[in-house]
Amino acid sequence: MATTPFIHDVPAAEALAAWRAACEAAGCPRRVEAVRLGLQEAVGRVTAEPVWATRSSPSFDAAAMDGIAIRAAHTIGASESTPVLLDPADYVVVDTGDPLPEGFDAVVMREDVHYDDRRRAELRGAVVPYQHVRLIGEDVSANELLLPEGHRLRPVDVAAAAAAGAVDVLVRRRPVVAVLPTGDEIRPVGTEPAPGVILDTNSLMLAAQAEAAGCQAWRSDILPDDPETIAAAVRDAAARADLVIIGAGSSAGRDDHTAGVVERLGTLAVHGVAVRPGHPVVLGAVDGTPVLGAPGYPVSAALTFDIFAAPLVAALEGAAPAEPPRVRARLARKLASRMGMDDWIRVRLGRVGGDLVATPLPRGAGVLTSLVRADGLLVVPAALEGHHAGEEVEIGLLRGVGEIDRTILAVGSHDLVLDLAASQIRAADPGATLASSNVGSLGGLVALRDGLCHVAGSHLLDPESGEYTLPYIDRVLTGRDIAVVRLVHREQGLIVAAGNPVGITGIEDLTRPGVRYVNRQRGAGTRVLLDHELCRRGIAPESLSGYTREEHTHLAVAAAIAADRVDAGLGVLAAARAFGLDFVPVTREPYDLVLAAETLDDPITAPLWPLLADPTFRSAVEALGGYGTEDMGRRIR
Amino acid sequence: MATTPFIHDVPAAEALAAWRAACEAAGCPRRVEAVRLGLQEAVGRVTAEPVWATRSSPSFDAAAMDGIAIRAAHTIGASESTPVLLDPADYVVVDTGDPLPEGFDAVVMREDVHYDDRRRAELRGAVVPYQHVRLIGEDVSANELLLPEGHRLRPVDVAAAAAAGAVDVLVRRRPVVAVLPTGDEIRPVGTEPAPGVILDTNSLMLAAQAEAAGCQAWRSDILPDDPETIAAAVRDAAARADLVIIGAGSSAGRDDHTAGVVERLGTLAVHGVAVRPGHPVVLGAVDGTPVLGAPGYPVSAALTFDIFAAPLVAALEGAAPAEPPRVRARLARKLASRMGMDDWIRVRLGRVGGDLVATPLPRGAGVLTSLVRADGLLVVPAALEGHHAGEEVEIGLLRGVGEIDRTILAVGSHDLVLDLAASQIRAADPGATLASSNVGSLGGLVALRDGLCHVAGSHLLDPESGEYTLPYIDRVLTGRDIAVVRLVHREQGLIVAAGNPVGITGIEDLTRPGVRYVNRQRGAGTRVLLDHELCRRGIAPESLSGYTREEHTHLAVAAAIAADRVDAGLGVLAAARAFGLDFVPVTREPYDLVLAAETLDDPITAPLWPLLADPTFRSAVEALGGYGTEDMGRRIR
Repeated sequence: MATTPFIHDVPAAEALAAWRAACEAAGCPRRVEAVRLGLQEAVGRVTAEPVWATRSSPSFDAAAMDGIAIRAAHTIGASESTPVLLDPADYVVVDTGDPLPEGFDAVVMREDVHYDDRRRAELRGAVVPYQHVRLIGEDVSANELLLPEGHRLRPVDVAAAAAAGAVDVLVRRRPVVAVLPTGDEIRPVGTEPAPGVILDTNSLMLAAQAEAAGCQAWRSDILPDDPETIAAAVRDAAARADLVIIGAGSSAGRDDHTAGVVERLGTLAVHGVAVRPGHPVVLGAVDGTPVLGAPGYPVSAALTFDIFAAPLVAALEGAAPAEPPRVRARLARKLASRMGMDDWIRVRLGRVGGDLVATPLPRGAGVLTSLVRADGLLVVPAALEGHHAGEEVEIGLLRGVGEIDRTILAVGSHDLVLDLAASQIRAADPGATLASSNVGSLGGLVALRDGLCHVAGSHLLDPESGEYTLPYIDRVLTGRDIAVVRLVHREQGLIVAAGNPVGITGIEDLTRPGVRYVNRQRGAGTRVLLDHELCRRGIAPESLSGYTREEHTHLAVAAAIAADRVDAGLGVLAAARAFGLDFVPVTREPYDLVLAAETLDDPITAPLWPLLADPTFRSAVEALGGYGTEDMGRRIR
Repeated sequence: MATTPFIHDVPAAEALAAWRAACEAAGCPRRVEAVRLGLQEAVGRVTAEPVWATRSSPSFDAAAMDGIAIRAAHTIGASESTPVLLDPADYVVVDTGDPLPEGFDAVVMREDVHYDDRRRAELRGAVVPYQHVRLIGEDVSANELLLPEGHRLRPVDVAAAAAAGAVDVLVRRRPVVAVLPTGDEIRPVGTEPAPGVILDTNSLMLAAQAEAAGCQAWRSDILPDDPETIAAAVRDAAARADLVIIGAGSSAGRDDHTAGVVERLGTLAVHGVAVRPGHPVVLGAVDGTPVLGAPGYPVSAALTFDIFAAPLVAALEGAAPAEPPRVRARLARKLASRMGMDDWIRVRLGRVGGDLVATPLPRGAGVLTSLVRADGLLVVPAALEGHHAGEEVEIGLLRGVGEIDRTILAVGSHDLVLDLAASQIRAADPGATLASSNVGSLGGLVALRDGLCHVAGSHLLDPESGEYTLPYIDRVLTGRDIAVVRLVHREQGLIVAAGNPVGITGIEDLTRPGVRYVNRQRGAGTRVLLDHELCRRGIAPESLSGYTREEHTHLAVAAAIAADRVDAGLGVLAAARAFGLDFVPVTREPYDLVLAAETLDDPITAPLWPLLADPTFRSAVEALGGYGTEDMGRRIR
């Protein structure tokens, strides 16, 4: 296989080092300028010089309790049986924070003092000197180092600095990041979709990532695929920003000009890194400003920011980049990875039976929802071919462990009712999550067997018995104490374009010449249903044009029909209705939730059960179309 | 012991629940209003309704690679030995992202295509349908649930929402938090210090904490300790904010009006919680707005925000509060805790010999620097009496583990040179930290013995031999392979007020009537030095007035003298000079760094050694006054 011209696979750490060296050689500033900010404005910024205390806190010996100031020497020998009586001249009533009066050296708590009728204070215990006294400098002494240079200021830091005498601090200003979207096919967010049109979601994301990293970000207009225009925009941005990010055009295709422009205007340090997704990355410098060419695929763009831009802007501020917390988790399934590239795998996490389980999400560089749904990132290093199922791996967290611990993992068949339930559960309790992975009914039962989920959604038809799901449980989950809770009955049928222009009346019509079918993936209950319907009619699967085109959800099937890429697909009525498509009924089937019987009492799944009994939720489900909720929540096994 | 009137010890979870119930009963809104914001402005906000995809992404079948679109059926049988040749009419050159032309169903990568001289494309392998094709909806299908209600939007979320057809989203507006500082003794930050004056650092901190939690914050002027004024301000704030925080006055002292005001104006749900520090907390509601009375001690105020305000404002946004990542660490020393209260212990963390070690920091509610310097928080629950030394405990992290793993833990004697080194190390490498804990020379050697630090700073005089530190190593670190690196020589002497008004000429003068001495804590090398100097003169320690007043650093000693609380204390010249004080020399002593020999090669300590050889650093040290750097960095054992 030929290699792509100009693109190399530079390991990430090496690429970052090469970029830094090139920036230094090109005269890029090591740090952004320092500015003096009031303490309130300085929160979140990084100190540009050490903060030394200029006064002590407290700046005087102070009472640490409400009570009376005394001289400790007066209390020697005091006890329950031999209390000491202090004349009013020998004590001073003080409140917390009051200065210790001159000549006094201890405080007795109000609760421990009794007064006689001559206002003498009775003490029933000896007091050590400096009891309940905050000595000068207890918190901080003048001339002490309070904060080093390179410290990102938090609320407690500025409060401590104020107590230590500061009113302002010298900090690094926010780095400025310019994002330049490029591409003839790119249109602003909000443009009507059309074939070939891609929305400029990347510059929105990259600018927001820059702001989340503490920078100020601005976006240029979308630039056409014209090297001269891009070059002019890069020079303009380089003059005004501390980092220029050029969106897309970083590969080596016909319209990819980033590398060429950077090479012509300045230094091209790296073109191509050994990171997947993210491979076609450009790193260089123009006019003393670092330039990053980000790939066009959104996941690649997002990760490129994290891997290259985030450390760079942190260095410009003189700080260490934020790092995700790490956990160890058991990998749900085998994960193959091509050697030679770091593979950044998005994973879903859940706590099943005490174990943290990591399930890989779709790996496509274009599947941004994989990053939206990810709870963490697993990096398979370039030197590894992957991991075994069940292997313990280290995950960088994108979500808090507490939230993950309260996530119901539903794996199996896709149904819109699960989407609706997920939203309702979160709305009722912000700490609770229902996460569903669509791997088909059979995949769900296998995941349940392997301890990778709490609940499996299934509507698997057993052709021999005509029964749904239960026969499969006996096969896949032999000997386990399994509960089955009915979620809904639903209409399955052929989804066709509005007005049914091709005139589909049933399964038989799918073999007609020119009829383009769209299938579901292997293991999906709907695929099993199609195969059963074909079989009992004696139709060979190969006689369907498009039998090999696989989608993973009912909605994806409907979307393909709505876009006129295909003519028909088997799916639920609700999916057809969501797209305003027509529907030719085939069957009515039950959709069930399968789980270990003990999981019924697991606090993690607790938010699910009252929801299934909620009449409002049932009405919402029925409003989707084609759903019967008469048995919702009924345990059928 | 009598109990404080009105204050109760309500467990934190119970207090929060009682507050929530009281707020509900008082008609406080469950959520803040929803507003529709553009995607860019919505980052960081929480969704107020689920986000459903309104279009599919991609919205058309698209090429996933640069190459040619073909019909898969044309390639059946193609192999290295029997390549297939496609006429120009049977392929279309496409770039990544281009729509798949009508009638074509696969893409072959540019690198895998060879052309003959008639522009026919030669393929040397069969292609499966939909190879390198991004199907409609690969990322997201129209009508799919993209994000649930109650989701805090990140950059990747808004980008995915944009791809799925959104231009704006319904989110909760930021909750508004009003902070009302109170107290006759409170002055604005920047006011000159004077006995009895306390700077209003808490409202700065509380407002910044609110902003860090995603709120909008405003601060009122400082209110006097007058119930009517406070009541009027609370009503005014309640009308304009979603949460009112009253600073200080939450206890039951003479000038503590918060509880009374809240009770009079609305509902007082809780007065006093079983949390230390933080105990005197007021929770209630006024005019349909939650009110929190925060304690005046800064650590108490900060923790009160985290424990009570943060969950409340998160709930107002419909989100779960942010939670710190957790790690398990070995406790450096025994930790006693009074039962009946959750004890929030600030700890310093470091990785010593592979183990994460947690060292408790000072526990005083007034020691804000303990929170500044903390790497994590350990909660000792109310039901426990504490933990044993070496016990494994769970820590909520305040700093990233990566930074903690690169922290040099120096425990032992305090010296200003360590402060200077800490700042230089961070400035040179933002990822590196030198953290020093001042427990005295002997404490440092014991910590080193117990594997609790990397380096121990010591200047312990052995009176018998007149040698420093080395004799103690043989006693405390018997049989260990220990290295000793000289840091500095330094002048020790009596620090006295400028102009030496009391006329101190040497150790003997400390026994003069009226001379107030300030001592260092037990185990400090300077204390050992004093005791030695007293002993060889036959002076009894008790004859020094103030022998029992203990400070933990040279600077704290100097600060007490500068404030005229005491007349003299033993310490280094640099501390005297920092405060413009006079100095009566007593001795010149070596200050050494003690460490396990193998630690010399530990990458954690690597940033230290070049610094000690750096002439600029040596000059900076000498500029402090009283330091000799001639042996700096020399290994003396």
